[in-house]
Amino acid sequence: MFRNRMPRYEVLSQDAMQALDGGWRRLMTEIGVQFADPRALDLFRAAGQKVEDETVFLDPDFVLEQVAKAPAEFDVQARNPEHSIHIGGDAMAFGAVYGPPFVREGEVRRDATMDDFRNFTKLAQSYPVLDSAGGVICEPSDTPLDSRHLDMTLALQTLTDKVYMGNVVSGVNAADTLAMTSILFGSREAIEETPATISLINCNSPLRWDDRMLEAQFEYSGAGQPVVLTPFILMGAMSPVTIPAALVQQITEALSGIALSQLIRPGTPVIFGSFLSNINMQSGSPTFGTPESGLGLLCTGQIARHFNLPFRTGGGLTSSQVPDAQAGYEALMTLLPTFLAGANWVMHSAGWLEGGLVAGYEKFVIDAELVAMLQHEFTPLEIDEGSLAFDAHQEVGHGGHFLGAMHTMERFRTCFYRGEVSSSDNYERWLRGGGQDTADRAGEIWKQKVEAYEQPALDDAVREELEDYVARRRTELGD
Amino acid sequence: MFRNRMPRYEVLSQDAMQALDGGWRRLMTEIGVQFADPRALDLFRAAGQKVEDETVFLDPDFVLEQVAKAPAEFDVQARNPEHSIHIGGDAMAFGAVYGPPFVREGEVRRDATMDDFRNFTKLAQSYPVLDSAGGVICEPSDTPLDSRHLDMTLALQTLTDKVYMGNVVSGVNAADTLAMTSILFGSREAIEETPATISLINCNSPLRWDDRMLEAQFEYSGAGQPVVLTPFILMGAMSPVTIPAALVQQITEALSGIALSQLIRPGTPVIFGSFLSNINMQSGSPTFGTPESGLGLLCTGQIARHFNLPFRTGGGLTSSQVPDAQAGYEALMTLLPTFLAGANWVMHSAGWLEGGLVAGYEKFVIDAELVAMLQHEFTPLEIDEGSLAFDAHQEVGHGGHFLGAMHTMERFRTCFYRGEVSSSDNYERWLRGGGQDTADRAGEIWKQKVEAYEQPALDDAVREELEDYVARRRTELGD
Repeated sequence: MFRNRMPRYEVLSQDAMQALDGGWRRLMTEIGVQFADPRALDLFRAAGQKVEDETVFLDPDFVLEQVAKAPAEFDVQARNPEHSIHIGGDAMAFGAVYGPPFVREGEVRRDATMDDFRNFTKLAQSYPVLDSAGGVICEPSDTPLDSRHLDMTLALQTLTDKVYMGNVVSGVNAADTLAMTSILFGSREAIEETPATISLINCNSPLRWDDRMLEAQFEYSGAGQPVVLTPFILMGAMSPVTIPAALVQQITEALSGIALSQLIRPGTPVIFGSFLSNINMQSGSPTFGTPESGLGLLCTGQIARHFNLPFRTGGGLTSSQVPDAQAGYEALMTLLPTFLAGANWVMHSAGWLEGGLVAGYEKFVIDAELVAMLQHEFTPLEIDEGSLAFDAHQEVGHGGHFLGAMHTMERFRTCFYRGEVSSSDNYERWLRGGGQDTADRAGEIWKQKVEAYEQPALDDAVREELEDYVARRRTELGD
Repeated sequence: MFRNRMPRYEVLSQDAMQALDGGWRRLMTEIGVQFADPRALDLFRAAGQKVEDETVFLDPDFVLEQVAKAPAEFDVQARNPEHSIHIGGDAMAFGAVYGPPFVREGEVRRDATMDDFRNFTKLAQSYPVLDSAGGVICEPSDTPLDSRHLDMTLALQTLTDKVYMGNVVSGVNAADTLAMTSILFGSREAIEETPATISLINCNSPLRWDDRMLEAQFEYSGAGQPVVLTPFILMGAMSPVTIPAALVQQITEALSGIALSQLIRPGTPVIFGSFLSNINMQSGSPTFGTPESGLGLLCTGQIARHFNLPFRTGGGLTSSQVPDAQAGYEALMTLLPTFLAGANWVMHSAGWLEGGLVAGYEKFVIDAELVAMLQHEFTPLEIDEGSLAFDAHQEVGHGGHFLGAMHTMERFRTCFYRGEVSSSDNYERWLRGGGQDTADRAGEIWKQKVEAYEQPALDDAVREELEDYVARRRTELGD
């Protein structure tokens, strides 16, 4: 997996960090955080926190004590050990887009289906730069709602051998994911020993954790599986319009959720989550790849490190409806800061389109290229006698060219990143090739990849046990 | 003008800087640099440097003595004082694309004309984020070659009131630019007092300064006008394929040219130039917006600061043939590092397409948006009681929304960057608006801007004197 050994870009001064520190302490103490689950309220009450109805007024120092119990780094196992990942430190893991109800394929935008889900899962398996297909790559509308999580989990388990995300629609769905993960890895003990699935727990920002998400959190944290406690903030709607206020709210929400995880099971792994952008104040539409989200992202990394926590943020986000110039620059406007901040768990790394409503096939290919480019860019230079190439200058002299120099011949195959979807063809050659734009080329590439996909091997007995589980549970759920 | 008060992102360790230091000293001493102008050779010889034919073997410490004479920061005046700029420190100035023989307008790619040149000049005048139209925004093929520089300079002087670049095709052209600049600013003394034009002197990399460029350099440096001494490096062709070698060569070339400027006129302003990308090793095509160029750009900033020199690099570079997703991400892959490095003079900030062969109307609009977004992103956060917005949380409470909060109402007009070409319309609204992609929208915007353009006022006597000069010189040049 990729290790980001470049420096972190930190933009908050000590004074700024102190002002934010004062801010979240006050918010947590005086406004408090709501938890819509009686078990959560009981845990906080038993730990001496003030609880009124669903609101918990948290002592910041108590919260920091809980946060300190969470590991700074941990491993997550994949069924193929080569695809197991590390979360934290300089490790960065990349997963596909999560949640879109629609897909875009060329000029067609339509409801996502289970076939789409399988296609995207295959694509995620095909790209070495992706560490995970994620979870709900798209929401397959042609499968029954109550048992859909079973189909998706089975696809993630069998079509990829990479880490996958757990379903969080309810406690029941989370329990199913844990049961199926226990089957895949041999036992519940095996996954409690080394976690095998990561789940996304979103806050109902501002300052409220809802019942279904908390049910899922109780299941996953109880089983020692990492949860990403994520404030879901579109500034102007779910938080004040100012970035410092959004950061303060984000800290308050994330730390309160992390504290709960540690009360459920001390030491259970967590990820400091961030999903931070803003709305268009004229239309109310969410906007992505904005200057404000980029700046917020950089701050988030610095803040998470301050609390010694691995963190999730970033991805290839865009508001654009199609995989055009805006989709390209907005995706990079988020992805490049993702690398500058050194995010550890990067959701939405490939395929995000139209504010997250659409999983785009072409966008998936484009984003995977961006991740690959940035992995190259964020690899420190090696400077030695060979890379300084004095001998090449002796060979070439003034005003010459290095195309045929020995130094070049020895390195030309690997010296530069080779793009897959980007074109540097000259105009005549490009015209002869059909004058395709990036989206056209990406459209050919994803189809080739799905065509060339090979399913990773899986023990027949395990596959049967998983299929039996899905069949039984589908019946029990009435589908 | 924009001041970049965010931190610089520096990726070279002390050890790396030392290795590069050893590299350029060796290259300069043992391989030397060619200067194809006898006056340059005489100056170096007179200063005690070893000269063999056209090759000067430079003493690195002598070069550093010369470099130390160049100012770290300086002003450049525009005829509208509000558009005068500062070069160096945290100031960043942005100019349009420079040099393309072709233009692209929608689906049409064709030879550039003087009308195109005027259109782009008007666009540069219209965008507040651009400090200059640059120089050769495009190469107008419908004007006579020998007097073309007069037409272009007159257009830059009369259609904009911003800083413009000087012509460098020959010493004669440079002298004409200086004469016309003296007319516009009142006298030669006025522009020697505070420079009024910036010129681009490209190296014939590797390690050779050609005669015409040197002629121009003698004119401009002799008049105290800043020159951008720019190694022109596409790694794999004009330098070895390794980034450290390219950096060493870049330092050697830039410093050798800067040393010459200081021999011509001690203390004359210079800009450490960088144009650093790589070729596609399969096809030999130049590639832009690559990981290697991004990394080289970050290093260049750190190196220029090490020598206490203002520097030029970056822009919205791309290999893409059309303003598509690739054009968007490659432009940003260069522009974002431009801000991280804090480049002082940013050529090619708007309009670059197809490896610099094409000035793109739509791309111009897209790039100007990127520059505006990044200027917002690279503005430090202000953290105070108001921005922490505790009162807004008291007003809104848990799970509510901030759309109508007092804190929001007070700030909603200015709180977020408002894009011009980016769209966050929801799908239905976007369809109703015609389902345009970014390039379509940009196509409407540039036409509106040219339509709405207002020519800045200019004293009639000055205008007549400029026009007389152009008419007289055109006749003298035989056109």
